[in-house]
Amino acid sequence: MDIKELGEFGLIEEIKKGIALAEGVEGIGDDCAVIPQTTGRETLVSTDMLMEGTHFLIEDISPYLLGWKSAAVNISDIAAMGGRCVGSFLSFALPKGTQKEWLMEFFRGYKEVSALFGCPLLGGDTTTSPDRLCINVTVLGEAACGESVKRSGAKVGDLICVTGPLGDSACGLAHILTGCVVDDEAKVLIDRHYKPMPRVTEGLGLAAAGVSAMMDISDGIGSDLRHILKASGVGAEVDLESIPLSDELKRKCALFGWEEMDFAVSGGEDYELLFTASEEVEKKLEVPHHVIGRIVEGEGIRWIGGEKDYMGFRHF
Amino acid sequence: MDIKELGEFGLIEEIKKGIALAEGVEGIGDDCAVIPQTTGRETLVSTDMLMEGTHFLIEDISPYLLGWKSAAVNISDIAAMGGRCVGSFLSFALPKGTQKEWLMEFFRGYKEVSALFGCPLLGGDTTTSPDRLCINVTVLGEAACGESVKRSGAKVGDLICVTGPLGDSACGLAHILTGCVVDDEAKVLIDRHYKPMPRVTEGLGLAAAGVSAMMDISDGIGSDLRHILKASGVGAEVDLESIPLSDELKRKCALFGWEEMDFAVSGGEDYELLFTASEEVEKKLEVPHHVIGRIVEGEGIRWIGGEKDYMGFRHF
Repeated sequence: MDIKELGEFGLIEEIKKGIALAEGVEGIGDDCAVIPQTTGRETLVSTDMLMEGTHFLIEDISPYLLGWKSAAVNISDIAAMGGRCVGSFLSFALPKGTQKEWLMEFFRGYKEVSALFGCPLLGGDTTTSPDRLCINVTVLGEAACGESVKRSGAKVGDLICVTGPLGDSACGLAHILTGCVVDDEAKVLIDRHYKPMPRVTEGLGLAAAGVSAMMDISDGIGSDLRHILKASGVGAEVDLESIPLSDELKRKCALFGWEEMDFAVSGGEDYELLFTASEEVEKKLEVPHHVIGRIVEGEGIRWIGGEKDYMGFRHF
Repeated sequence: MDIKELGEFGLIEEIKKGIALAEGVEGIGDDCAVIPQTTGRETLVSTDMLMEGTHFLIEDISPYLLGWKSAAVNISDIAAMGGRCVGSFLSFALPKGTQKEWLMEFFRGYKEVSALFGCPLLGGDTTTSPDRLCINVTVLGEAACGESVKRSGAKVGDLICVTGPLGDSACGLAHILTGCVVDDEAKVLIDRHYKPMPRVTEGLGLAAAGVSAMMDISDGIGSDLRHILKASGVGAEVDLESIPLSDELKRKCALFGWEEMDFAVSGGEDYELLFTASEEVEKKLEVPHHVIGRIVEGEGIRWIGGEKDYMGFRHF
């Protein structure tokens, strides 16, 4: 069924189904959503736009996975502050001829990851596009006042850590773009690309433990770590040998002659957390993590064990 | 200068200039913006997407006015709840080859209307588009708990009111689309289309006075009033003769043989406030307004003095 038959308001009725709201919260249906405030808490807000042809190719990604990813990459920004989710706002410009079935699959993915992290859809905007699909998500979260973890808190001597293996997403994307044969191992990597899992629980644990700076890895640590360094006025040494790599990535790189570190350091879209912590804090961390380097005086990154200067993904 | 030369982070530095933040608020620069909460207040959130080719033609609108309008239509949603502004989040997908000068003009308009209403830009996302420009704005506001005005409060016997003349924006758009000669009067109407003025002060006054339901007029009252009726479970009688029309609109309609009421009732994008109030409340209102009808039992709208059933603008 063409969404034109459903109409804007019929569509909104479909979208509203199955969304669980916290007490006092008013979601879809008025000029604004309404969310009560509590003294001692702070609201966290982030937004991301996904444009067809830039961020995804509509023939390559299923609507379910596109819905999942649209919500997940935003929820990841709340995780990156050590916050918990409050809700999301979704805008899209839909190409003419979009089918209801396509859109319902999109929402199945969007709502599934949103429900996992207690992040109900609270509002949005539905409009049409002359051709390309464009999606924008804004996510709201919250933390106790002053307890959200910024990029600016890294100190000389802190350890640099990540919550999981890097490069899988970029290696998965390489499979998609090169049209390689996709076996079970490649599927794991492609899944990491299309179905990232926001590290909200990990972020909450790390914030409570007192890590000094944190962000999520969207452009690769070659770019993302520089944000922490710039905001904190420090430099870093990263030991390339310490960067955690999955067995799947190692085997695929060996098979196709790809450079492991290009994926792991410059690939991006891993949505693992990158954080810094003093040795005392790191020693007691219960959240699984890998130490990959140390904060030093100065600026920029010195890569130990490599000759390139990895820069991460550039948007333009 | 092509924005590619400026780079993503050079661009963000330019955007950050001249933005005034309230105490305790952290804006652009981290994974999330951070806004302190206060018990007894409620956060208001709304979002709108503007797609090139659907909402605007890039050859027809100056970047200054596009920036103004992008912020203004969102700020209007805060006005519609009777709230005050907290800040906004702007995402855009920029076509390749976008010039720095174009973008700076866009931000001049965006920041000008934002500053007028105390609505600093707190974050966003900058990305590229293969061709069309897409803009998404999310705006945050706040009100005392339970004092924001919903669409659902209209009661039988309430008067239906608007804060200003209707149809100017649609009549201005007709000048643009038909390529009519643009004299000073037409300029006034076109300005109403491109440079809407959010009614934040009026909204705050109306909320404080105790109006029963409110929204802003984006699709024309033929559509917008139906939202209030549906949410409140009531019907309406609207006296077409009472709908306020500007002299400019009347003269242009007489000249070109256009139907005044098509613009005033179905045109939309006026961004005046549409509200309902009991007779007692209406009598004491200090905010300038025009009574155009009355809430009655039943459903739908009965148009007094007309034979058409005006439906307002349909998005798809």
